[in-house]
Amino acid sequence: MTTMNKQWHLVSRPSGEPTPDNFKLVEAPVPELQDGQVLVRNHFMSLDPYMRGRMNEGKSYAQPQPLNAVMQGGTVGEVVASKSAAYQVGDKVVSGGGWQQYQLADAQAQAMMRKVDTTHVPLSAYLGAVGMPGVTAWVGLMTIIEPKAGETVVVSAASGAVGAVVGQLAKAQGCRVVGLAGGPDKCKAVTDEFGFDACIDYRQHPDLKSLSAALKEACPKGIDGYFENVGGLILDAVMHRANAFSRIAMCGMIAGYNGQPIPMAAPQLILVNRMKVQGFIVSEHMQHWPQALKELGMGVASGKLKYRETVAMGIEAAPQAFIGLLKGKNFGKQLVKLI
Amino acid sequence: MTTMNKQWHLVSRPSGEPTPDNFKLVEAPVPELQDGQVLVRNHFMSLDPYMRGRMNEGKSYAQPQPLNAVMQGGTVGEVVASKSAAYQVGDKVVSGGGWQQYQLADAQAQAMMRKVDTTHVPLSAYLGAVGMPGVTAWVGLMTIIEPKAGETVVVSAASGAVGAVVGQLAKAQGCRVVGLAGGPDKCKAVTDEFGFDACIDYRQHPDLKSLSAALKEACPKGIDGYFENVGGLILDAVMHRANAFSRIAMCGMIAGYNGQPIPMAAPQLILVNRMKVQGFIVSEHMQHWPQALKELGMGVASGKLKYRETVAMGIEAAPQAFIGLLKGKNFGKQLVKLI
Repeated sequence: MTTMNKQWHLVSRPSGEPTPDNFKLVEAPVPELQDGQVLVRNHFMSLDPYMRGRMNEGKSYAQPQPLNAVMQGGTVGEVVASKSAAYQVGDKVVSGGGWQQYQLADAQAQAMMRKVDTTHVPLSAYLGAVGMPGVTAWVGLMTIIEPKAGETVVVSAASGAVGAVVGQLAKAQGCRVVGLAGGPDKCKAVTDEFGFDACIDYRQHPDLKSLSAALKEACPKGIDGYFENVGGLILDAVMHRANAFSRIAMCGMIAGYNGQPIPMAAPQLILVNRMKVQGFIVSEHMQHWPQALKELGMGVASGKLKYRETVAMGIEAAPQAFIGLLKGKNFGKQLVKLI
Repeated sequence: MTTMNKQWHLVSRPSGEPTPDNFKLVEAPVPELQDGQVLVRNHFMSLDPYMRGRMNEGKSYAQPQPLNAVMQGGTVGEVVASKSAAYQVGDKVVSGGGWQQYQLADAQAQAMMRKVDTTHVPLSAYLGAVGMPGVTAWVGLMTIIEPKAGETVVVSAASGAVGAVVGQLAKAQGCRVVGLAGGPDKCKAVTDEFGFDACIDYRQHPDLKSLSAALKEACPKGIDGYFENVGGLILDAVMHRANAFSRIAMCGMIAGYNGQPIPMAAPQLILVNRMKVQGFIVSEHMQHWPQALKELGMGVASGKLKYRETVAMGIEAAPQAFIGLLKGKNFGKQLVKLI
């Protein structure tokens, strides 16, 4: 029997915010399994802000998402057929399966596919706190910010899949941790669920002066580390409250993904405060993944590391969920549940 | 006999470019030498761009220059009287003597005063290539940019006291070195005297597009390291040609010293190119001074390390020379010769 596979293709590049027209749902039969291949049924698809950057044609850190091809992205799923000794039917795997229901993978070449244990960690968490977002938090915090006990660390998009982990890891290092999030509900979760010392609702502070004042109040000893997920006004405000020798790990600049210019208002503060501002991509720090995944997995399994998920139901929902993610409508890790 | 001492005081803070009115020439007798003190007659005063930043009241990395007090700054001179066993009349010293003809120093407290050997290195060089500017070049290049053979390093203010040393050190590391300087004469010296591979006259490229094109031509393999002395348009243009994992050592932002805003146009490039942008102040890296001074001194003594000086004559000339320095009228290290 032929298995039909629904998949989302990118069919045009957005100018500004993506629209549903940029995507097309394509249905095609799954090709027959060849020796050395495995067929994975995807249970969850990951939607991530970085995907917006890849939709542009221009230079970025990765090749652009090709047109008229399956949208790329992380997935977790289950092996439903295998002609590889390395995988058995029933194995749970995390991989880059893309925006589709099934993926046919060459078990040898698929270096990024790995089996995961769902005894103590839910399968979906391997796309979030115990996956790429969690490791992103770990690498940026531990290798660039390098927080010391007593320092103040600020995190933007603090209720997000990355930000919530950054804050909890920084708390564990003995830091004062201040989040920024959009709206009272997210802010409440950031302090009450994720244990941040304070959270600023940036929507209440639409200008530099107001946001700087809020940061001053929340960070009475200034800011030593900043985990940057947003860019724009928040970055400017943080720089005005930055201490000497402070570090900024630049992980995402969602404010600029749609192509509008987002200048940094006062780069001379990098000099005045002898700051280090460093961009990084988690996939280029593979040497840290094993340790990070181990610590994050233990955190989730023990219940100490908290996270939230927003789950869209069914593959058809993916484009709207992605567009919502870019507008901050999600709460925590944005997933699409496929079965 | 009483020795009279002329000194320049800062009497008002400039708004924008400094003017002669901000300074006042004061003449006062040198106080009598006390036990443990030395009297130094300054031979050369150093004028440096950082002094403009200290003339502002606002937050910077150092305390502001006080009003109605001697302008602070580096000097080289000769001990003309001593009541300290540590110094003899005739000793040549480098210290922070300020804008004045004589300084009375407590030999114990004056930790920054040190004797120098003028057998193979001219006294004035201890204010330039074998002094603070040279060490600034060394620290920024060797500890932040960390150039590797085959990489391309770009230096702004390339004919200046810092920039010329940066380029020569980077050449010695096996890099392609491209300078930026103002005007054909400076550019010619940058390539012909200092041995840079190329030099761009930024005055010929008044906009981002033109300057980026010039950088593209001069740096066919992109830019791996940038030693930032200027800020503004040049920084933006360099960032557009920066390679993955490139490093910017932010040493000076002379474009912003007069208070005008100098935004960084595209900070998202720090993320896209996984760049490191780091500010530093040479006086906070004292652990590197001995090695740097040794290497720089050997370079000057052997004639391998070249430098240029612009010398204003007489203490009266200091304010105009300083104002000219901020406009780029000097060529190499700006000094005032006092005797």
